[in-house]
Amino acid sequence: MNNFRLTTYLTSNIGADKSIIDQLLSHCAIRQYKKGDFLLRQGEKCEYSFFVENGLLRQFSIDDKGKEHIIQFAPENWFMSDRESVYFNQPSTYFIQALEYTTVFLVAETLLLELAKTDAAFLAFNNKLLHNHIRHLQRRITQLQSATAEERYLYFTKIYPDLTLRVPQILIASYLGITPESLSRVRKELAGKNHKK
Amino acid sequence: MNNFRLTTYLTSNIGADKSIIDQLLSHCAIRQYKKGDFLLRQGEKCEYSFFVENGLLRQFSIDDKGKEHIIQFAPENWFMSDRESVYFNQPSTYFIQALEYTTVFLVAETLLLELAKTDAAFLAFNNKLLHNHIRHLQRRITQLQSATAEERYLYFTKIYPDLTLRVPQILIASYLGITPESLSRVRKELAGKNHKK
Repeated sequence: MNNFRLTTYLTSNIGADKSIIDQLLSHCAIRQYKKGDFLLRQGEKCEYSFFVENGLLRQFSIDDKGKEHIIQFAPENWFMSDRESVYFNQPSTYFIQALEYTTVFLVAETLLLELAKTDAAFLAFNNKLLHNHIRHLQRRITQLQSATAEERYLYFTKIYPDLTLRVPQILIASYLGITPESLSRVRKELAGKNHKK
Repeated sequence: MNNFRLTTYLTSNIGADKSIIDQLLSHCAIRQYKKGDFLLRQGEKCEYSFFVENGLLRQFSIDDKGKEHIIQFAPENWFMSDRESVYFNQPSTYFIQALEYTTVFLVAETLLLELAKTDAAFLAFNNKLLHNHIRHLQRRITQLQSATAEERYLYFTKIYPDLTLRVPQILIASYLGITPESLSRVRKELAGKNHKK
């Protein structure tokens, strides 16, 4: 029995036969990336869902003025992909980059779809992944539309509890859609509040 | 043969047998709402995907300060739902409201899932709906993170070509995440540019 995080993830999330999970894993390449390496660049077609076995990824776009905007981080046990590019067979508008030395499983979209056709557990799993993704995106939109800098930061620490120390402040600020100065102010204020408790 | 927009939509999008589509339609209630009526309120559980046969819906949240934030409009031929609430069986964070006299089909999520299990065309269709939704949400995030007021408005006129005259300016501004004054300025500038052409 292997000890991959992906095995545990699939066992606890799908509840499919071990043989089915082994079958999936046997079709997935495992790859390692150095800090700074790109798994996907804007304009390329995304063909995989990347499952982070160890390490950390970020997904971001670059606007016309050259400014980066981070849409998501993916530490261990997260999937990252440009579902739009994969599904609609279009060039991606995103970059996916390793922020640390990172080991990922490359799960081909075609493989998930094939398994979903023949195995009800995988159909349900794929549905869950898609709905989780929708939930995450909806919350991002609500945050960007209405949350204060402090609310955004608190939500960030909730969904990514161990990233505040792993990710440079400037990248956290980019994800939150606030300036690094605002982030610094928020962190100081929160530290002050916690100190008073 | 009925002449519903939903029939045409399903025929052209699924390519399933007419009998299957009739089966789906026979399980969907059709309901009419007056301008201002709510199809869903914050805190309620969303149980349907609403297909707009005629009219116009908006989906929005209200923040702690009482300010409304519109996440989506749905004119004819659009689906609207809180997929998160439906799928995870949670109270919705959104309101869905009719902006005009509106006729909708209520498509139960359980029905789509049942059909997806037995009919490959419906499985593919449900997948397409989910990916379309993800595409839409991703683009909203990119817009909110990086687009100028003018870019946001131009994108709005592209995806909702007939809504500029149907929706009050204040609601368009809410959707775009800009002030009504900014929207007014953008529209004047664009009118000036078009006049010069």
